This record gives sequence, structure tokens and C-alpha cells, in this order.
Amino acid sequence: MGQIILNQITITPLKKIITPGGSVLHAMKNIDIGYSGFGETYFSIINGMSIKAWKLHKSMILNFVVPLGKVKFVFCTKDKDEFKEIIIGEESYSRITVPAGIIFGFQGLFSPYSIVMNVANLIHDPFEIERYEKNEICYNWH
Amino acid sequence: MGQIILNQITITPLKKIITPGGSVLHAMKNIDIGYSGFGETYFSIINGMSIKAWKLHKSMILNFVVPLGKVKFVFCTKDKDEFKEIIIGEESYSRITVPAGIIFGFQGLFSPYSIVMNVANLIHDPFEIERYEKNEICYNWH
Repeated sequence: MGQIILNQITITPLKKIITPGGSVLHAMKNIDIGYSGFGETYFSIINGMSIKAWKLHKSMILNFVVPLGKVKFVFCTKDKDEFKEIIIGEESYSRITVPAGIIFGFQGLFSPYSIVMNVANLIHDPFEIERYEKNEICYNWH
Repeated sequence: MGQIILNQITITPLKKIITPGGSVLHAMKNIDIGYSGFGETYFSIINGMSIKAWKLHKSMILNFVVPLGKVKFVFCTKDKDEFKEIIIGEESYSRITVPAGIIFGFQGLFSPYSIVMNVANLIHDPFEIERYEKNEICYNWH
């Protein structure tokens, strides 16, 4: 059961187009895999070696893109015993689509910081978020 | 007439929320001023002192946010005689909404580069873009 939901996380490689003065980096189109409506887009800065964990969205579908730096995302089933790790960033430039119902956290792997963009199908709503303390889930970040 | 269209460009200050491990930066919600549907979001990297100019979108409505660095945007009427300059970036963290039909260019004011995010109501379509050479429009970038 847990394995099945973690297998629903998808990774979509994204194009970087070299142009004079600086590249253009694709992020998300409304025809792309993982698009399920537009609620909000925002940025999370994550400092080098900092960890933001853990959170679960009951309804929000997430699309993470890292245009600056490098970030490790860790996904975990609700029974807290299966994990999936995905690293994306400038080098492996891709989008991660995360269905609702998955616990996740992330760690900055680039100094001074990385930028995570989330394109979400819903506007931020604290009532659809479950939060867990870092040590509530037995995962070794180091 | 030119003045009227340049006055339709709007600047919306955006929130930065300080959280442990790195701030959260608002960008755009589907209820925000300037939102007119979601077609695509992408990033344009602009190197320090580089200029990308000029372009006009016949149909696309643009929403620019600069989560890294500092960028000067220059907007120009189709008769090429009136200009509007707006600088946004990490310090004056805001969103610029640009109606269709305005010529624009931008210049990086931060080294090594700045990141511009565009949230657009349409997917990229080369047929709705008009391009002009940098020297076709009499504007002093320096």
C-alpha cells in the first residue's frame, strides 16, 4: 500500500534553453504531466544543510522545481516505514510531482541556499496540512 | 494612448515569510491581482549587466517575479516614444503584471545573475511574439 503511493510520485526532466544573456528554464505548462489546475505558486528558500520536515498535504498536489542549487526531497508513507529520496537542482533539472497524502521533507545541499518553486493546484490552506516534528519520523538525514 | 497602456502595468508587493531554514516567498495565487488563467510558468536567467530586449506579446499577459538578484524592466509603447522603468528583486520584492501589447526588455543588475519567473496566461507560442533588435528602439540602457 505504502509502496504504491510512493510510486505515484513522478519526475519529469525539464528543458534548459541556452539564450544570449542567460538561459531560459522550463518549469510547468498547463498541458504537462502533473498539472492539475493552478492554485498558487511560491518559493521556499532552503539554506545549505538546513532541513524542512515533515509535512503532509491532505488535498494539495505539489510540483517542485529547483532553479537554483540542489535539494534532497524525502517522501514517506503515512505509516512512516517506507521512504523515497529524490535529488533535483540545477544539474538534474527536473520537476517532481507529489500526489496528496504523502509525508515529505527536504534538505538544502547547496550553499548559501537553494530555491524550491512549488506549483500547487490549491491556495495555501493551513487546515489541509498535517505537520510532524523532525524526530517523529525515523529517517537519518546525514 | 501610449501613456494609457503603460499605466495598465501593475506592481503588487509580495510577502516574504521568515521560517527556520529559509524564507517562504509568495509569488502568485489564482485570486491575486494580475491572474488571468494559467498557461505556463518558466524562469529566465539574466546575467549581471546583460540585456534581453525587445519583445512584445500580442496575447500573453505576463507576471514577473524576481526571487534572486535585481532586474530592471523597461516597457515601451508600440509607437516607441514612451517608456516606463521598474526595478524589482529580492529587496523590492514585488510582482509586475504586464498586459498584452507592450514592448519590453530587461537588464540584470546583480552578479553573477538574477532569476526572473514569469507566470503567463498562455503557453509559449512564437506566433504571438514580435521581436525587435536592441537598437531598433531608442533607449539608453546605461
